[in-house]
Amino acid sequence: MPNNGHQLNPMVSQLQIDTTFDLSTYLKEQKALVEKALDNSITIIYPEKIYEAMRYSLLAGGKRLRPILCLATCELVGGNIEMAMPTACALEMIHTMSLIHDDLPAMDDDDYRRGKLTNHKVYGEDIAILAGDGLLAYAFEFVAAQTKNVLPQKVLEVIAKLGKAVGAAGLVGGQVVDLDSEGLAEVSEETLSFIHTHKTGALLEASVLCGAILASASQDSLDRLSCYAQNIGLAFQIVDDILDITATTEELGKTAGKDIAAQKATYPSIWGLEKSRSQAQILVQNAKAELEVFGEKAMPLTSLADYIVSRTN
Amino acid sequence: MPNNGHQLNPMVSQLQIDTTFDLSTYLKEQKALVEKALDNSITIIYPEKIYEAMRYSLLAGGKRLRPILCLATCELVGGNIEMAMPTACALEMIHTMSLIHDDLPAMDDDDYRRGKLTNHKVYGEDIAILAGDGLLAYAFEFVAAQTKNVLPQKVLEVIAKLGKAVGAAGLVGGQVVDLDSEGLAEVSEETLSFIHTHKTGALLEASVLCGAILASASQDSLDRLSCYAQNIGLAFQIVDDILDITATTEELGKTAGKDIAAQKATYPSIWGLEKSRSQAQILVQNAKAELEVFGEKAMPLTSLADYIVSRTN
Repeated sequence: MPNNGHQLNPMVSQLQIDTTFDLSTYLKEQKALVEKALDNSITIIYPEKIYEAMRYSLLAGGKRLRPILCLATCELVGGNIEMAMPTACALEMIHTMSLIHDDLPAMDDDDYRRGKLTNHKVYGEDIAILAGDGLLAYAFEFVAAQTKNVLPQKVLEVIAKLGKAVGAAGLVGGQVVDLDSEGLAEVSEETLSFIHTHKTGALLEASVLCGAILASASQDSLDRLSCYAQNIGLAFQIVDDILDITATTEELGKTAGKDIAAQKATYPSIWGLEKSRSQAQILVQNAKAELEVFGEKAMPLTSLADYIVSRTN
Repeated sequence: MPNNGHQLNPMVSQLQIDTTFDLSTYLKEQKALVEKALDNSITIIYPEKIYEAMRYSLLAGGKRLRPILCLATCELVGGNIEMAMPTACALEMIHTMSLIHDDLPAMDDDDYRRGKLTNHKVYGEDIAILAGDGLLAYAFEFVAAQTKNVLPQKVLEVIAKLGKAVGAAGLVGGQVVDLDSEGLAEVSEETLSFIHTHKTGALLEASVLCGAILASASQDSLDRLSCYAQNIGLAFQIVDDILDITATTEELGKTAGKDIAAQKATYPSIWGLEKSRSQAQILVQNAKAELEVFGEKAMPLTSLADYIVSRTN
């Protein structure tokens, strides 16, 4: 994780709470916009099966956290939702691709995802592999072809960042180390940190940064947002690990208790539940502290940070 | 296949043969340039296994036809090799990804490729899936981040074209129909044509067009090159089908006789060997006719067209 100094800031955010901001309504509205754009992004043509398989997983619900983060940072630094929507959709296509491939029998071998049968359980392994490939390729095509009213150089920066976040230097690399660590008697905190900063952190950070890049954010803003993203990314993963222990399969929409069953190293397994919870809280406070300079405009992002530690699925 | 009128041109190319042009030397030189750029494109860092798996298949030899076509069209319309090299490498990364995933047990289940064990036979299925994903993501990152001295808008056009060529509207869609057609008693010429224009044709056409786009080619040049590409793409596939019957596994570097074993519809199975050979010749003549306006500068591309029908592996 690059250290630009910001995450060492010990000051805890004391942002005044704007009582007019309702996160739940905000998330609902943004999610609806994203769902509509995703629905419009893929039309079913011949050969229908592949488009259906891509849509099956892409439109299977989920929090749409990555697209919402992307839209929020674009607006934060003076852009608008239209500029960022193709990238927001691409982030969800990439995230969905990673879920489809992670669920394959050769990988995590999971039957349920977001409360529904996994892609390969419905369409078969061959189509699931191809649906993932199709979504990944389409994500880049979609950003390149559909982004309007943004400097082309900024769109290229976004594409490079998306590619890096999902490739061997990001998500793919994190998954490799994760697979290698499964069932090991001991996994160091360093290895666990590598897994999470790559497997979930990289794409979350890209989500936060890409929205801002599209709106030509300053380097200082990008540095602050990068730090915000790294902190909420790690908090998100810690909470994920906690929920795997404390929540039911029904609440999660995916198999609960999997980490223990797979003897997977997690933050609770290293730190225990209590320390994991308090670390997540500290990370969220650090994340929020980075956004103070933006004032009330940052309310969606600070509320999202709080939501990450308080969520139950 | 879009019909822009060019492929209906009945005139057969009577280009004067420039006896100073030696295709074999040209291919050797261009291939060496591409191999060097590919070798430099991926450095092995932690987690080493994924980078090694990506390099294993990317540097496993092969004709490097797609990169060479891309470099050739860029030069043809006034660009230079440096402008097109990142895209040339990306084309080979995408092609390699498609081979790694096609060879998986859930797909064509093949043990050998380019005379070596397939990726999953060496690294396991999980890593092979991830190596493909990593190469696909890196291809887009590489074009976006490494292309120099090209208008950013042109780079975006190239990325959109690459994405379309590999996604459901291209390679992935062709593979889906191919898998569906395997073992069927009857496959129509229309279906076979869909498979090939998508599974091999789309990326070959992108190879030809992307080089020219980077050098800001005129629409007329792009139309001619598109037609050239469609003709050599189909000829290439017909020859592939012929070689699967007539060549040995050793000559091919991959399992020969696979199509018959899999009861796969091929051009020889529909037309017979003789008609397949003559159709390939006609397509190559049509391809060459499109390039007459470019004069001697088109020699690499016209020679490549001839090479496609005369190759033995």
